[in-house]
Amino acid sequence: MSLPRTATTFAPPVMEARRWLEGVAFTDAKPLINVSQAAPVDPPPESLRQHIADTALNVADAHLYGPVLGLPDLRAEVAAQWSHAYGGEIASSQVAITSGCNQAFCAAITALCSEGDEVILPTPWYFNHKMWLDMSGVRAVPLATDAALLPDPERAAALITERTRAIVLVTPNNPGGVEYPSDLVRAFYALAQTRGLKLIVDETYRDFDARTGAPHDLFAVPDWSGTLIQLYSFSKAYRLTGHRVGAMVAHPVLLAQVEKFLDTVTICPNQLGQHAALWGMRNLGQWLAGERDEILDRRAAIADNMPRLADKGWRLMGAGAYFAYVSHPFDMPSDQLAQALVRDHHVLCLPGTMFMPADDPAGASQLRIAFANVDRQGISTLFDRLAQVSC
Amino acid sequence: MSLPRTATTFAPPVMEARRWLEGVAFTDAKPLINVSQAAPVDPPPESLRQHIADTALNVADAHLYGPVLGLPDLRAEVAAQWSHAYGGEIASSQVAITSGCNQAFCAAITALCSEGDEVILPTPWYFNHKMWLDMSGVRAVPLATDAALLPDPERAAALITERTRAIVLVTPNNPGGVEYPSDLVRAFYALAQTRGLKLIVDETYRDFDARTGAPHDLFAVPDWSGTLIQLYSFSKAYRLTGHRVGAMVAHPVLLAQVEKFLDTVTICPNQLGQHAALWGMRNLGQWLAGERDEILDRRAAIADNMPRLADKGWRLMGAGAYFAYVSHPFDMPSDQLAQALVRDHHVLCLPGTMFMPADDPAGASQLRIAFANVDRQGISTLFDRLAQVSC
Repeated sequence: MSLPRTATTFAPPVMEARRWLEGVAFTDAKPLINVSQAAPVDPPPESLRQHIADTALNVADAHLYGPVLGLPDLRAEVAAQWSHAYGGEIASSQVAITSGCNQAFCAAITALCSEGDEVILPTPWYFNHKMWLDMSGVRAVPLATDAALLPDPERAAALITERTRAIVLVTPNNPGGVEYPSDLVRAFYALAQTRGLKLIVDETYRDFDARTGAPHDLFAVPDWSGTLIQLYSFSKAYRLTGHRVGAMVAHPVLLAQVEKFLDTVTICPNQLGQHAALWGMRNLGQWLAGERDEILDRRAAIADNMPRLADKGWRLMGAGAYFAYVSHPFDMPSDQLAQALVRDHHVLCLPGTMFMPADDPAGASQLRIAFANVDRQGISTLFDRLAQVSC
Repeated sequence: MSLPRTATTFAPPVMEARRWLEGVAFTDAKPLINVSQAAPVDPPPESLRQHIADTALNVADAHLYGPVLGLPDLRAEVAAQWSHAYGGEIASSQVAITSGCNQAFCAAITALCSEGDEVILPTPWYFNHKMWLDMSGVRAVPLATDAALLPDPERAAALITERTRAIVLVTPNNPGGVEYPSDLVRAFYALAQTRGLKLIVDETYRDFDARTGAPHDLFAVPDWSGTLIQLYSFSKAYRLTGHRVGAMVAHPVLLAQVEKFLDTVTICPNQLGQHAALWGMRNLGQWLAGERDEILDRRAAIADNMPRLADKGWRLMGAGAYFAYVSHPFDMPSDQLAQALVRDHHVLCLPGTMFMPADDPAGASQLRIAFANVDRQGISTLFDRLAQVSC
């Protein structure tokens, strides 16, 4: 008797980490610094909340089932803004709205893969990707990255088998923070296209990319939709994590398959969240630019503080989007170290073991610091505490 | 090369039916009567909308990630109201909130089944159940029902193999409308328990059951959670279809598995919808009683009008919840008949073929009429039109 699908994967890491807090007494003098999750802790701006209230009160449709693939106006807005931002041609029919970006990934995999298929993921990977592949009976093939956390297309090519269906890139990367160079993304695209695979590019953190201009030029390729599947989240840009709205940009034929999955799993994305995302796209561009500036300043604070840790053997492997990914100098494996950090230093971060295959020892020396919710002063305090760690 | 999971199933039937409307000119004199979907067409009451607006404006948490298994207060409210209504003991820890009831079903199957497993479904079945089983690599084993659309436990027993993991009952039934007698549900429970299977009881339409009191006594069995998995939807009771909120009541050990699925697919149910459902449960009991009265009156209108069709060879197989399920007297298969009804009589309903295995000819003579949105006068007009049909 084979295991039920959920039994083939692990428990949600964020929740496991939250359990480490139990029984630890945090104090006003030394409160918890929580750098475990990539989520805003403040609600969206007042203007957006007011819009939700007005919509909730006045738009009857916002309470009823909507189209499986999402609100037509929101699909059109994504198509228009993306066409401009990426210098390509993206039609509404190539956009689907999903109940968060995780669901977009699940839908894409279900539309591409069958039992026993394979998908290539650079490591460290995003654990929910690994969990969905496990539950789908799809083998997650780890692609080790270099010292700068960048994946190599030639190494990826060597991993392709007749069961490979897709390569997944997350850029800016979760957990690594690294922004993949445009040329590197293009090289993976060429590899996927040549080998008849799909390239899934998860751009959940695109709004916080330090670079100006398009982070890649794939949408400028005339037949991009034959190879590319792009994923996006409205959660980070407009602080809508509790509303569950994401997107997928792909070929309409693929979206017709995705539609089967979405119809069966949630029928449609919730409507108020879609109205909120649409209003945000149309009205919060300037506000979002300020949010990005703040995140980039926090990223700079990570770099500014890092020398103190580097002196003690720590190394900054990647920093960007909401994340710094570091290696620590201790003999203690990171899953134990992370729990000691909670107990002894009131710092909650996730160990690299949560982002790595069980048989890859690298995770034991790594930690992810999700710094987005900690301001420059807080980051300084965080590094004070980390600098005191000795194992 | 095996087919991707989505390619193993059919396109969403509701959307296929909607395409039949294209190119048909409906008139004021003879407008479309749409009895295709089980969904309210009006928004929730003003008081609930006002509550959503106030929540959206004032509760910061309502915009942020919440617990994977749902808002603790909503889980507790379900536990308390269910304990009272079913005369059993249900704890908060036995309740999970999901992004709609479809998702609850998907989560349950994923927590129970692996590739090649089997699940028994009475026919006609709910097509989204069949679609998820297809996509999961699980064989949907059809259990033919009798002339009153009731499934027989002995016939079910004969279908059990070593790969069977669960039996699914939908009561009141979609599409059949029939309310399963308490004794029948108990007999299925006994069968499932004896054979080490789970009994999944989908009670999406429980609030519109014509019977008073508990529709079954399973929750009164002391160890119910060893066998029973109950599914529920907030969409129908409080007109929240666009908010995507459902529930699962089951053993906490199973919910820990379900949590993996929910975390990976949507992270958490959207928060505003959960606040709306909670407010509805606490404040709209009396309003819901009125809604139920209206639905029961429409059901009575179906029965009152049926003799006109019976004279022409139609038969009412089941009526309840939002649905009448009928057999028609024509040689034309129901999928063609349904399209002719749109063209010639401006009536949109779903053919039995959408609710039946491809190899079961019974669906060809059946139609589902989702009457919930049509008042007594409209039902009379609907039957006027059906009485004119000749093929």
